[in-house]
Amino acid sequence: MNGAESLVRTLVDSGVDLCITNPGTSEMHFVAALDKLPGMRCVLGLFEGVVTGAADGYYRMAERPAATLLHLGPGLANGLANLHNAKKARSGIVNIVGEHATHHLAHDAPLTSDVAGVARPMSDWVHTTATSRDVARDGAAAVHVARTPPGRIATLILPADTAWDEADAPALAPAAPKRPAVAPAAVMAAAAALRWGRGCALLLGGIGVREPALQLAGRIAARTGCALLSEFNSARLERGAGRVITQRIPYVVDSALALLKDFTHIVLVGAKPPVSFFAYPGKPSLLAPPDCQLSTLATVEDDILAALEGLADELDAQTLAPVHVAALDRPQLPTGPVTLEGVAAVLGALLPAQAIVVDEAVSSGRGLGGLTQGAPPHDWLTSMGGSIGYGMPVAVGAALACPGRKVVALEGDGSAMYTLQALWTMARESLDVTIVVFANRAYQILRGEFANVGAGAPGRRATDMLTLDRPVLDWCALARGHGVEAGQAADLETFARQLQRGLASAGPYLIELLL
Amino acid sequence: MNGAESLVRTLVDSGVDLCITNPGTSEMHFVAALDKLPGMRCVLGLFEGVVTGAADGYYRMAERPAATLLHLGPGLANGLANLHNAKKARSGIVNIVGEHATHHLAHDAPLTSDVAGVARPMSDWVHTTATSRDVARDGAAAVHVARTPPGRIATLILPADTAWDEADAPALAPAAPKRPAVAPAAVMAAAAALRWGRGCALLLGGIGVREPALQLAGRIAARTGCALLSEFNSARLERGAGRVITQRIPYVVDSALALLKDFTHIVLVGAKPPVSFFAYPGKPSLLAPPDCQLSTLATVEDDILAALEGLADELDAQTLAPVHVAALDRPQLPTGPVTLEGVAAVLGALLPAQAIVVDEAVSSGRGLGGLTQGAPPHDWLTSMGGSIGYGMPVAVGAALACPGRKVVALEGDGSAMYTLQALWTMARESLDVTIVVFANRAYQILRGEFANVGAGAPGRRATDMLTLDRPVLDWCALARGHGVEAGQAADLETFARQLQRGLASAGPYLIELLL
Repeated sequence: MNGAESLVRTLVDSGVDLCITNPGTSEMHFVAALDKLPGMRCVLGLFEGVVTGAADGYYRMAERPAATLLHLGPGLANGLANLHNAKKARSGIVNIVGEHATHHLAHDAPLTSDVAGVARPMSDWVHTTATSRDVARDGAAAVHVARTPPGRIATLILPADTAWDEADAPALAPAAPKRPAVAPAAVMAAAAALRWGRGCALLLGGIGVREPALQLAGRIAARTGCALLSEFNSARLERGAGRVITQRIPYVVDSALALLKDFTHIVLVGAKPPVSFFAYPGKPSLLAPPDCQLSTLATVEDDILAALEGLADELDAQTLAPVHVAALDRPQLPTGPVTLEGVAAVLGALLPAQAIVVDEAVSSGRGLGGLTQGAPPHDWLTSMGGSIGYGMPVAVGAALACPGRKVVALEGDGSAMYTLQALWTMARESLDVTIVVFANRAYQILRGEFANVGAGAPGRRATDMLTLDRPVLDWCALARGHGVEAGQAADLETFARQLQRGLASAGPYLIELLL
Repeated sequence: MNGAESLVRTLVDSGVDLCITNPGTSEMHFVAALDKLPGMRCVLGLFEGVVTGAADGYYRMAERPAATLLHLGPGLANGLANLHNAKKARSGIVNIVGEHATHHLAHDAPLTSDVAGVARPMSDWVHTTATSRDVARDGAAAVHVARTPPGRIATLILPADTAWDEADAPALAPAAPKRPAVAPAAVMAAAAALRWGRGCALLLGGIGVREPALQLAGRIAARTGCALLSEFNSARLERGAGRVITQRIPYVVDSALALLKDFTHIVLVGAKPPVSFFAYPGKPSLLAPPDCQLSTLATVEDDILAALEGLADELDAQTLAPVHVAALDRPQLPTGPVTLEGVAAVLGALLPAQAIVVDEAVSSGRGLGGLTQGAPPHDWLTSMGGSIGYGMPVAVGAALACPGRKVVALEGDGSAMYTLQALWTMARESLDVTIVVFANRAYQILRGEFANVGAGAPGRRATDMLTLDRPVLDWCALARGHGVEAGQAADLETFARQLQRGLASAGPYLIELLL
């Protein structure tokens, strides 16, 4: 058994059975080991941002890490932006990054770079294997890190000689660590704050926005009248009919300030203190009022569910019916010209039960919440890191994790361009993803931000840098080029028909929605 | 004047008049300054790898740096792979990377990351501006670094508040530094080695493979009988009829060893000791025979031209006619099924004078040299860093630098997929680029490397990771999706007609060549 084989066996034995790959020469022994040994599903991406984003989406839905296979420093670099998003989403990923053979590094061959230096900013753990006999142990350590709750980015750098030299035996990662329990004092403090009542909110994040936690939050709200908030973005928000609704803190600073202005105490449950996405001249970074007290019931790492159970017990709320529960309420299919409200109605009318919505619609996506919250239960995934190009790759990973569920990827045309190669992997793997590209032919969000930062009205050169209309991107052609069927919609009736077609198909389908 | 305006004026006053951009919110004041102030051409890329690769291509041809504008850590990360290539090509680039406002960083907003940490592995110089009053001076320093010969990667990180706060005045970068002269002893030593004669070679790199240096090398070869070699890859090799031919050291280790086996002394002129691209079990990293002496006449930073002048003087070769000069010799247009030799003949027959060939044809490109070296004078650009996805972006930059010259980008289908968004910028800027995509529908080089590293014959899973045939990429659709006209060729007659069509058009044209 060589080092690569010992690593593949370690990964498979430790429960990592999906490897998303974009290999090069230095990874050929690992590829050969994947080829030879049973148990690992291999999925090819044609760009590394697809690979890392898919691993993020997989973790969010499967709740266990996939491995990635990346080629040296530049291959890892191409995957960094989506590793940034995954790290902020607290997804667990095991990155296997090839490196030149140890003896080759001194010669500064063209592809030589500081691989660990590239890895460090977007990894929670970076390790370079020293010899082939260490590979299995290092691989088990990487799996252990990746599945430490809520999830971490582990990057294992594998010099080619450690893959091809002889190894001993595979290793086994220890059982996934448990989430730490919160201190009883934190539960007491939260209960005291909520009992006081007026102006209180629970701000939910992490697994706090999934079904069992939401139910508990709804019971606590029933007892105390507290508001239920969620962060602007959530790795995986469970919502829809029958589920407790949280109010999302808006992206736009003034709207967020308005929402939060009357709160006197916010209890953080897997969430961080609310902060604006960007800084703007003369506006605050912190969104809660200065005199609002922030206290932490549970961090994103903690046993959030047990903390909420404890809080509900303390408040004697366990037997109450949750409040803020969404009723099944589907809008009529609208007609006429495309409006964002009309799009929301089409989605609300047609989203199937257990759909996984990956939302990277950016400026077009902000108004989709209201008309979709009465659709059957579904998951809503947003970008925790804010680096665009996350959506279609995360959709790939979600579809790999949940073959029985429909994935709906909502994409801005600007954001979709960063990782459009994801379409090919959807086609190759026949993934059940319907993609809606909101074709406003602009970096629309930046047109707003240009004004928000006080730069006034854009002139010709600035407009050129914020618009994508010269030439127009033909998303149907781009989809077909990647082997994905596609159609266009320029009114709401057509959009509804196109969406029905996509939802009815078993493989990927792209809709270019002209705004 | 705010900090952003002071920076734009500094750049323009210092001779940087092209900014290739992919901005976000934190760069909006810089965009506003570009909008307001005259003198800077702005070119938008829809993915950051396009932006940095275009800056590389621009420097190779214009011999002065462009600026890039990138959005925070993840935006920079998306541009890193082509910064790696640019750094290895010794191109000069001024990266302007936005950062959160200084006071916002403490709050760990979603897009917060270690920007300097991301920059460091692929930059020669990294600096974060402290206040708006420092921006101009820091910008001038960045230009100075970028144009220090042969060229360096300068990354200036610009917190948003340093862009929007008040500044004093622009600054001016000092004149570009001169290349250092080599020591007379190095010239004497090289002359002594070459006088001895047998088994000697000049190995040329950097500007040693451009016209005036090549002429001198040809005169030196006329006097001494030395061989003239060039590295496998060159940032910009000037070749074609009337120019001195260098023998390229092959990529395949055994072929390189065979070429170099009888040399006893290799004089390095802007080149590094020959080293294999990758390590392979049981094969050497260093390609020159163990008993071959390597000496350095000039490093890639040195005044290579003066060093060769000195050497030619010392050898009394200045008045000799250069040897190894390519005659004008164009092959007949071939017919029949597509072969790589036939493709080379079509290129040799049709390449126009002063064409700029950007070669990322990878495995399909290795045999193109012989039948094209008798074409009219042209430049041949290859990847110095080995990270694929460099080709189409570099073609963008070369076309921006040389509007009167035809750019021909030769692309593997696998490699073209990494940065296919470059097509859109070609269309928007009406760049005169003809792209040939060699559609072998595989990572063909890796099929060879799988065997080369001793992994045997690939099985099903490995084959899946090395082939792009399920589904087939439709390059004509991909091109049209980006606004670029395209045609397909499946035989040599059609390829010749398609190439003629591309060469006759003034804008971009893509040919999908089925292998």
